[in-house]
Amino acid sequence: MAASKPSLSKAVNAIATPPIPEIQEWAKAYDGHKGRLIDLSQAVPGYPPHPKLLDWLGEAATSTTSLGYGFIEGEPALREAYADHVSKFYGATVTPSQTHITSGCNQAFIASIMAVADAGDTVLMTNPCYFNHETTLEMLGVRTAKVDCDPANGFLPDIDLIRAALKNVKVFAFVSPNNPTGTVYPPQLLLDILSACRDAGVWLIIDETYRDFMDDDGKHDLLNQTDWAENLIQLYSFSKSFCIPGHRLGAIVAGEQVIDAVAKVMDNIQICAPRAAQIAVAKAIAPLADWRAENREEITKRAAAMRRTFEDLPEWDIISMGAYFAYVEHPYREKSSTEAAKFLAKEFGISCVPGAFFGQSQENYLRIAFANVDVDTINELADRLMDS
Amino acid sequence: MAASKPSLSKAVNAIATPPIPEIQEWAKAYDGHKGRLIDLSQAVPGYPPHPKLLDWLGEAATSTTSLGYGFIEGEPALREAYADHVSKFYGATVTPSQTHITSGCNQAFIASIMAVADAGDTVLMTNPCYFNHETTLEMLGVRTAKVDCDPANGFLPDIDLIRAALKNVKVFAFVSPNNPTGTVYPPQLLLDILSACRDAGVWLIIDETYRDFMDDDGKHDLLNQTDWAENLIQLYSFSKSFCIPGHRLGAIVAGEQVIDAVAKVMDNIQICAPRAAQIAVAKAIAPLADWRAENREEITKRAAAMRRTFEDLPEWDIISMGAYFAYVEHPYREKSSTEAAKFLAKEFGISCVPGAFFGQSQENYLRIAFANVDVDTINELADRLMDS
Repeated sequence: MAASKPSLSKAVNAIATPPIPEIQEWAKAYDGHKGRLIDLSQAVPGYPPHPKLLDWLGEAATSTTSLGYGFIEGEPALREAYADHVSKFYGATVTPSQTHITSGCNQAFIASIMAVADAGDTVLMTNPCYFNHETTLEMLGVRTAKVDCDPANGFLPDIDLIRAALKNVKVFAFVSPNNPTGTVYPPQLLLDILSACRDAGVWLIIDETYRDFMDDDGKHDLLNQTDWAENLIQLYSFSKSFCIPGHRLGAIVAGEQVIDAVAKVMDNIQICAPRAAQIAVAKAIAPLADWRAENREEITKRAAAMRRTFEDLPEWDIISMGAYFAYVEHPYREKSSTEAAKFLAKEFGISCVPGAFFGQSQENYLRIAFANVDVDTINELADRLMDS
Repeated sequence: MAASKPSLSKAVNAIATPPIPEIQEWAKAYDGHKGRLIDLSQAVPGYPPHPKLLDWLGEAATSTTSLGYGFIEGEPALREAYADHVSKFYGATVTPSQTHITSGCNQAFIASIMAVADAGDTVLMTNPCYFNHETTLEMLGVRTAKVDCDPANGFLPDIDLIRAALKNVKVFAFVSPNNPTGTVYPPQLLLDILSACRDAGVWLIIDETYRDFMDDDGKHDLLNQTDWAENLIQLYSFSKSFCIPGHRLGAIVAGEQVIDAVAKVMDNIQICAPRAAQIAVAKAIAPLADWRAENREEITKRAAAMRRTFEDLPEWDIISMGAYFAYVEHPYREKSSTEAAKFLAKEFGISCVPGAFFGQSQENYLRIAFANVDVDTINELADRLMDS
């Protein structure tokens, strides 16, 4: 019989290759003539984790407690510490049974989506949006719809457009503080969105990976609404705040029925998140609160340095900026965003992400993870862009 | 507007709740009157990992190298060490670029399935089969078909039945050494299956989680076949051999096109497997080969003790047994397998998995993870069953 070679998944074949490794390839073409590479692409805090956290990570990794399988939903100590933290942060009451630990926030997203949506359902997203959310949905056979965010409105989505777009969708999912635009969604807009989703019988998934880097006035009241658990799912990442992306740790807050469904999904994806990092971070949440606050202040300084830098660059415009990212308009009118990012990487040793990676009509923009680097490096960035 | 509460995923709603926590609940009803609980349910080696591995885990967890994001496909050092290990084990040539590291073998399975199959495709499995494989497929909207394994043939599937069943399927997936039956598929049967899959244009996924516990005569020549990479995907777990399930580490061997597709999936599931355990295990593979061989010998002794034990229990029959598990016929004709397992847990402090959890027509059987416990405990098991 003639052997026919089997084919790959059509859905996975159709999605884009992972963008970050591609961007890192561009930076390899840089010969160093402007100084060391300034990496503003993937969001990675440029400062180290607290030394106590490193100690706790080491202790947990060598402990026999970490060796066996853990609870699917997460270590009880971490669920408790995280529920307590979220409750205090938002002045709300979130119980440990309303939390689920995951191996990073991408996993929190895919597990949440699988828990509440099926192939063929539609998820409403923003344009621009975080690229991995879009490819995750595509590879699951979940349809996507988009609500356009107006640059003139700091890339905030309009509540009337959202209401109109919520028909026939199962979920509205977005990131706030936003990736890629940095925009922090105002508390009242978030309440209006939750209410619109409730009226339409739609799940609301908010990815709050960058929450710890926003000001207090970004704190919303979503978790104080009666019955929030009926349609709200909140995602979080320990990677950015604790500077441990390589340890892969994230969390979900949702109603208990959603948590039970997520546990079914997680059991099949990986049984449980790795235990050692869970045990270490459970110890770190409360005592390292001040350290995280200091980092937020440091990042506020970096944001101020970014603003000053771009004031001196009349050809460049910051369109939106917030907790971690700035979304800027580049001056290379003849270049696509990808060409602009490649040019900056190769010729100026500045690595950032093309707007086109985040959706339609984003060719004029670049995403800059300014929080990755210190104020001196941001000043150096200014000098290099001045020459560009 | 009347608010309608949104619904959960139909696919996830329909799948069974995770079985292991359910089984662990039954054991909680045991009052200890026969002595401590003998846990033969979830496969967890009863001996500790090598102390050097614990040291390496601690070093890696406190190292700044582990903090940042890693390569999606895995740490180069681990891919190299694992490719080298598999090549030596099978006398074949597997390159690092034909490997992908995952966070456990369940993740290796779901990532492989997503890489080669879409919702609506059919995956052929054995009956009985590993429950998480089945629920994984169900929640992805992938159909399943089954080829029955005859207890009279030690639960080996028949090649003619397989050939007949391969029509209109995208993948044939099974576990060897088998979970739940323990059966090691003979090398010639595996070659015949690979050839049948090749003829039918079907992917072959073999989960070799329990590989390190089988005798040398179980070693197959699949990876020595020309063009194996065209349709073979081999999965592995570091959890069992290295006694580190809580660190969640697994691996895939496949052709580079499959690896590229798996990387797309993994980027969306969790960007990369946690790095610290990867770095530690990369160091451990070669130097701890003798230690793993000693464990294999120890488990052979446990298997012999199991056989002796059941020879003295005329009402009990070992139907199949192999690298880690025994699949036994229980004497409680009036009880379902679940009732039998609950009875043994509550009244005799023996925790094992009901046959019904693995598929249709399995009510007479129980899965016993004999390799979890030492020879003395197996003798104690015999004493308790004698009374049962």
